[in-house]
Order: sequence, then C-alpha cells, then structure tokens
Amino acid sequence: MSQNPGANPSASDIAQLLQERYGASQHYEVLDNAILRHLLQHRSVRAFAPTALPPHALETLVAAAQSGSSSSNLQVWSVVAIQDAAHKNQLAIWANNQDFVRQAPLFLVWLVDLSRDRLVADAPEGVTIDGTDYLESVVLGAIDAAIAAQNAVLAAESLGLGAVYAGAIRSHVRAIAEDLKLPPYVFPVFGTAIGYPAEGLVSHIRPRLPQPAVLHSEYYDASAQPQAAQRYDQALDAFWKKQHIDHPLWTRHLATRLGNVAQKGDARYELREILLELGFPLR
Amino acid sequence: MSQNPGANPSASDIAQLLQERYGASQHYEVLDNAILRHLLQHRSVRAFAPTALPPHALETLVAAAQSGSSSSNLQVWSVVAIQDAAHKNQLAIWANNQDFVRQAPLFLVWLVDLSRDRLVADAPEGVTIDGTDYLESVVLGAIDAAIAAQNAVLAAESLGLGAVYAGAIRSHVRAIAEDLKLPPYVFPVFGTAIGYPAEGLVSHIRPRLPQPAVLHSEYYDASAQPQAAQRYDQALDAFWKKQHIDHPLWTRHLATRLGNVAQKGDARYELREILLELGFPLR
Repeated sequence: MSQNPGANPSASDIAQLLQERYGASQHYEVLDNAILRHLLQHRSVRAFAPTALPPHALETLVAAAQSGSSSSNLQVWSVVAIQDAAHKNQLAIWANNQDFVRQAPLFLVWLVDLSRDRLVADAPEGVTIDGTDYLESVVLGAIDAAIAAQNAVLAAESLGLGAVYAGAIRSHVRAIAEDLKLPPYVFPVFGTAIGYPAEGLVSHIRPRLPQPAVLHSEYYDASAQPQAAQRYDQALDAFWKKQHIDHPLWTRHLATRLGNVAQKGDARYELREILLELGFPLR
Repeated sequence: MSQNPGANPSASDIAQLLQERYGASQHYEVLDNAILRHLLQHRSVRAFAPTALPPHALETLVAAAQSGSSSSNLQVWSVVAIQDAAHKNQLAIWANNQDFVRQAPLFLVWLVDLSRDRLVADAPEGVTIDGTDYLESVVLGAIDAAIAAQNAVLAAESLGLGAVYAGAIRSHVRAIAEDLKLPPYVFPVFGTAIGYPAEGLVSHIRPRLPQPAVLHSEYYDASAQPQAAQRYDQALDAFWKKQHIDHPLWTRHLATRLGNVAQKGDARYELREILLELGFPLR
C-alpha cells in the first residue's frame, strides 16, 4: 500500500507500529488494515531532499484537504503554497529559522479565512454578517484548517513524501500576514513543509502518552495522569537514548516549553492583540 | 482496501470521486492510490444502525488519533467516550438535539486539555506554567484536537463505520463541562458520532469550492472568489436537486448561518466568556 519505503520502514506490521507508538511497556489490541497502518506509521520528517514534487502533487493534496469535514460547510480556510526559493527562505526565518522550511520544495501556509464567506455571503437586507466576529469562529476556523491539513499530510505521506507541521509561524503572524497580503479576517495558523525525505534520513515514530492519559469513559477522570506521565517519561527517554540524543524528560520539557513565557518575548503569546489588529473583533 | 461498501460505494475510481467532490464542471488531475481514494471518499454519515462497534474499535481509534502530529509534543487534548445510552441522549440534546448522536453507539467528546500538562509539568523553582494562559494555547489545543479527531474519523471509516463531526456541542459548553466534570483549563471543542451507517442509508460526497477559491500561490489573491462562489452555488445546487432536497444556495446559507447571530442567543457566541469561566485566562 504505502509508497513510502524511506520514511515508513515498518508499516507492514501493526504490532510493531504500536510498540513504537507507545513504547514496549504498553500493550493495546487494535484492529488492522492498510489505512490504519498508514495512520499509525506517521512520523514527522524534518530534513528534505531538493527533489521536486511529482506532477499534480499540489492539486492532489488540496483535493484531499477539501475532502475533510467542514463545520456547517462554511469552508473557512485557505492555503498559500510557497515554492519560490527566496520566499520560502523568508518564511523559514519567520518559522523560527527552521531549516526544513527552506529545504522542502513546498511550504504550505494554512490560513483561518473568515474573509471569503464575508465577501460572497448573499445577505438579504437587514442581515449583517456578524458570526465571523466571535472567538467561536476563530476556533471553528482552526479546527477546519487542521482537519484539512491533516488530510493533506496523510495524502503526502501516501505519495512517499514526508511532512512536518510548523506551528512556529504563529511567532510571526504580523509579518507573515503582511507579506502574504492577507485581508482582514484572515490569519496564518500553522504551516506544513512537504517534500521527499533527505537521503539516508531515518525518521522515528515518536511515542505518545499511554491511552489512559487521554481517553476517558463517560466522565473526565484525572487520576491516571501521575502514573501515565511517569511511564511516558520513561518511554520517551528510552526513545531519545536509543537515538543517542540528549533530551530532558517530557515532564521537564513541558515546564521549559510552557513555563515563564511572559518573560520570553515570543509574539505567539500576543495572538489576541494581533488578531484584533488583523480585523478579528474576537467578541 | 476499504471495508466500507455501504458508505463508500465509489472509492475504486479516483476520477469519479473527484467529480463528486467538485461537481461536473471542475476538472483536476490528481494522483491515485488507495490512501488517496480513502481520503477523497469521505462523506459524513448522519444516521446510524444500533449495531455495536467491533471489539477494540475504541482502542484503535485512539491509537490512530494519538499518531497524529502534536505541537511541540504537548499533547494538549483528551477525549471522552460516551457509550451509555442515557448519557448519550443527554449529549444529543446538548448537540442541538441531533438524532445521530443518540443513534451512534459511540459519541466522542474531544477536549482541549491544557490541564494535564499543568498537572504533570516538572517545573523547577522559579518557573510558573503560564504558557497555558494565552489565546495561543487554546488555538494550539484546537489544532491538536482536530488533527487527532480527523485521524480517528479516517480510522473509523476504514473499518466500515461512518462518522460525523458535531461542532454543535459548542452551543452548550457550560452544561457539558459541568456534566463531564472537566477541571479548569479543559473545554469540549467538538464531538464525533461514530457507528455503522443505518441500513439502506446512502450518504453522498458533498461538493466543495473550486480549488482556486482555497489555494493561493505565494500570496493571497481574492480575485477568484466571486466566480468560484457562483460556480459553487451551481455545483452544490445540482447536488441537492439530485437528492430532491430543497436547500438554499450556498451563498445564502452563509448569510443564514453567519448573519445576525447577535440576535440568535446561541451560546456558541459566548465562547470567550465561557472559557474565562472555565479557568482559561485567554490573555
């Protein structure tokens, strides 16, 4: 099924995929088919070959993206395909200077786009389009954009391409919005870099939290969290050690990533002010 | 590939899938493989048989969900599986009384969950976990939850199940948060109903906007929108007429759905106030 032998060495065995996904200490029984193996084989690719994409790849990714669900069929997302080298270099700088944006032949900037619906809505007299003016619609747009992008990522992986999300572009929303000439009610919500994996690159499936940490039955129950976090620290630590990568424990990573952000000056934490500047009333 | 003959009658032919997705007047060249056909065959299922899910279906969906990308590996989502009939009935009422929530054997409530990371973060002295306190983290959580849910939906469809998103639960966030016993920094962002399609149900692929409406090259360009909207009105109108369903044009639907919401009293437009109540500082 998969045409992705480089990035996807073990997609033929669901048990192996599960073990990589959860570490050796967790055991789950799951069903098996080629679609499930494709979903479970995902690993982000962060180094790309300069090889061009196959013909019609972009149309294919967009068709996959548009095939995802859209809330009330509002379709409040757009995507900008960046393929020009100089432009891609500029975006790479804004994506916290991550090289994979520069290397990948295609960088997609996904937009929450409430502008189109406002532009084309056929509003009878007395009807004002105000549904776009609320936080609700920004959340709805982020959901729609993520569903679309995930379909595009899975489509890319089915073509032997690798992909990685770049949420880091939210650190430079102002600059990117201006550069891409975005109208009011539109903002860049994340990017995806897409291309053939760099030669010789081995990308690994990153373990995730044990299922009891994320799955609740009927009601939310946090009692599993301390043990789950402890086990996950071990599983992820084993993952890094196997690759000879020095990495803090996950629970410490959380503190590094989410701690004292008020002192860091990262503009991603100005998103509220920036969206107001970009014309979102955020009621 | 697909084990979903009921909901997925035409997944063997990519040209047919494309024609259904865009209507007869739009022509795109796309690549073809079984994964792409699976992505393109999606149509929401809104009526379910009472048949139970196969064993291990829930574990399988969660494994697929967790295999999606997660921003900085923060994994800031959780999911509550509602299978109890009375509980599901209550959720159906809160999902604007949509019967499919009641019918489906499984209703998943997806949560933006910033609570777990706050709980288990190993913060050294002097480090305060404040990264969860910004609009940025709510947007990040919605993206992570949607990526996860889309993988679960695709996994369900690969098992012959049907699925539909229920964003309508955002009209009753307060009641659902209380019912599910959500701690601060957690809110229900959307649901998915999952089950075998009702006997005899034929679900159709809904057309989407022409690609030039959503895909931009290097820079945003709105000039294609008026013509794209006009063509899409025609394509979607033909889709409804073929099913003998009376439905307003899409551009009018936009005005109905997004117009004069301030007068509608729908609590989804109180999301900002509600998130503040639920402990999100939303800085």
